Amino acid sequence: MTKTLRIEEVRDLATRALANNGASDENAAAVAGVVTSAELNACASHGLFRIPGYVSSLVNGRADGNAVPVVEDVAPGMVAVDAKGGFAPPAMRAGRAMLIEKTRAQGIAVLGIRDSYHFAAVWPDIEPLAEADLMAIGFVNSKSYIPPWGGRTPLYGTDPMAFACPRADGPPMCWDQASAALARGEIMLAARDGHSVPETAGLDSDGNPTGDPNAILEGGVQLAFGGYKGASIAMMVEILAAGLTGGNFGYEVAEQNDFGGPSPCGECVIAIDPSRLGGDGFAWRIERFFNRITEDHDARLPGDRRIAARTRVEKEGTTIPVALYEKIAELAGGA
Amino acid sequence: MTKTLRIEEVRDLATRALANNGASDENAAAVAGVVTSAELNACASHGLFRIPGYVSSLVNGRADGNAVPVVEDVAPGMVAVDAKGGFAPPAMRAGRAMLIEKTRAQGIAVLGIRDSYHFAAVWPDIEPLAEADLMAIGFVNSKSYIPPWGGRTPLYGTDPMAFACPRADGPPMCWDQASAALARGEIMLAARDGHSVPETAGLDSDGNPTGDPNAILEGGVQLAFGGYKGASIAMMVEILAAGLTGGNFGYEVAEQNDFGGPSPCGECVIAIDPSRLGGDGFAWRIERFFNRITEDHDARLPGDRRIAARTRVEKEGTTIPVALYEKIAELAGGA
Repeated sequence: MTKTLRIEEVRDLATRALANNGASDENAAAVAGVVTSAELNACASHGLFRIPGYVSSLVNGRADGNAVPVVEDVAPGMVAVDAKGGFAPPAMRAGRAMLIEKTRAQGIAVLGIRDSYHFAAVWPDIEPLAEADLMAIGFVNSKSYIPPWGGRTPLYGTDPMAFACPRADGPPMCWDQASAALARGEIMLAARDGHSVPETAGLDSDGNPTGDPNAILEGGVQLAFGGYKGASIAMMVEILAAGLTGGNFGYEVAEQNDFGGPSPCGECVIAIDPSRLGGDGFAWRIERFFNRITEDHDARLPGDRRIAARTRVEKEGTTIPVALYEKIAELAGGA
Repeated sequence: MTKTLRIEEVRDLATRALANNGASDENAAAVAGVVTSAELNACASHGLFRIPGYVSSLVNGRADGNAVPVVEDVAPGMVAVDAKGGFAPPAMRAGRAMLIEKTRAQGIAVLGIRDSYHFAAVWPDIEPLAEADLMAIGFVNSKSYIPPWGGRTPLYGTDPMAFACPRADGPPMCWDQASAALARGEIMLAARDGHSVPETAGLDSDGNPTGDPNAILEGGVQLAFGGYKGASIAMMVEILAAGLTGGNFGYEVAEQNDFGGPSPCGECVIAIDPSRLGGDGFAWRIERFFNRITEDHDARLPGDRRIAARTRVEKEGTTIPVALYEKIAELAGGA
């Protein structure tokens, strides 16, 4: 049983569910914005599916729905945002204009968010920068799930990194990928359904590689993608998202809370104005480079399925399970 | 048969071999500097072993040993260096002071090098920035060896990325890793010795995964580490090192030259002053984070073997095959 919603219905429902449970209007609008973007891009895992989690974070008081992010101009090329224990989207929304302005003025600038609950994908944070003709790299850390390479104790989060690049002819290219080999949700689904996972996904409690999802989830650990090289990427994400911004490292959060929900960590976004260094030809050189990708057998540009979904979802709406719809309608105080 | 050289003998021999074959004094000193660093850090693969390659690039006129890099101040946070077809080390040396100055003033800055022959590791380019208490990320592209994910035609180079972070208590942590799953040299060694390589290392000429090194080298392609996620990293390296700087993409070089030597591509280094955003506690927070790594079973900090080698090599010298020594001594016009 499914229910189809127009995109403005998604936004309305998400906004009301958040506002009805203690989020300020500004915070509800910002969080509903990234949830709506996810549905528009056919990313169900970060869409309305997340609303009950956002709401329970508000209700149990973990995240502050009335947080007012504080934006600081700390250097000509640096913006710091203290999210004050609220969700990340309002903090990003608060700091983005200054980041863009500084990037255009300086050529490169960095935004650091600390003490934020990041419960969304990273691409909605950086894609708007590429729509403003900037390149952007985003780093978000989370509670620990992955040990350092050669170790056994969770230290790094699933720690996504994302990259966006403007194009001459089309919407920006944007990828967004966890440093974990496999999403935690996929391992949980495999456990539920009795499937195995690749042996590169995790270690059991004795530190041995295992394809048994239960052994990873119960006393074991997840691994980074690509062995030690992915672990190096995860380490960099922790250092940039938490060390540089003054946010919590994943292990600091793991020691503070055992709720299993989102964690008050940090985020770092580096933005670059390619017109200053690469020259006017930049966007067309990138276009030709991307054409090499799309013309090669089954290769495709990361994010192209998201982009292709937009026209369809805009026109036909998005379809979610009725049970989820009813749950969110209840949280919103009515359909 | 081996020969042991003191570190100053390495520098002298490398400098003379380059200067004797057409490199200006400045260029010979800069290249010999990174070669000497490699020997000091026990990285034989980027040490004196590379001198014959540097020299043949000079002799056959591919790289210009008399190139004078031109440094441009293109924006408050951006330095552009045109390497003028010379080796990368003199270009990096020429631009580094301005990069450090801009990073301290702006909080973040980027250096772009174009038209340079990068034939060294990336860590020698960014470690000095971390020794100046800055964080740094480096990207270098090269001639194409890796197809886009799902494709079959080489597009990305081996495309290393490197990251350096200052510490409160010890020399900087610095990692440096190729985007390729396996170094091309390792695949060539496996082919020579009749060994197989992991099936994740490459595709044969029909686009199928193969563990046969000959099938990868003859008509096949290398793959990125960690599947599509590593391919995304390689794509980002090409865009930052070549697209942003105005250097050649890997595929542009592959079409221009078939020499098999180093390629005139680009390099991008982003430097960040963590004291401006992360506050004074940054270095000690990083130190505690690193302690979590070194205290966990067999985990270690990337680069720790290099760092441990320094005291030993400084004292005992470095040992190379006699044949290599004699070859370089001949290039240098005498021992």
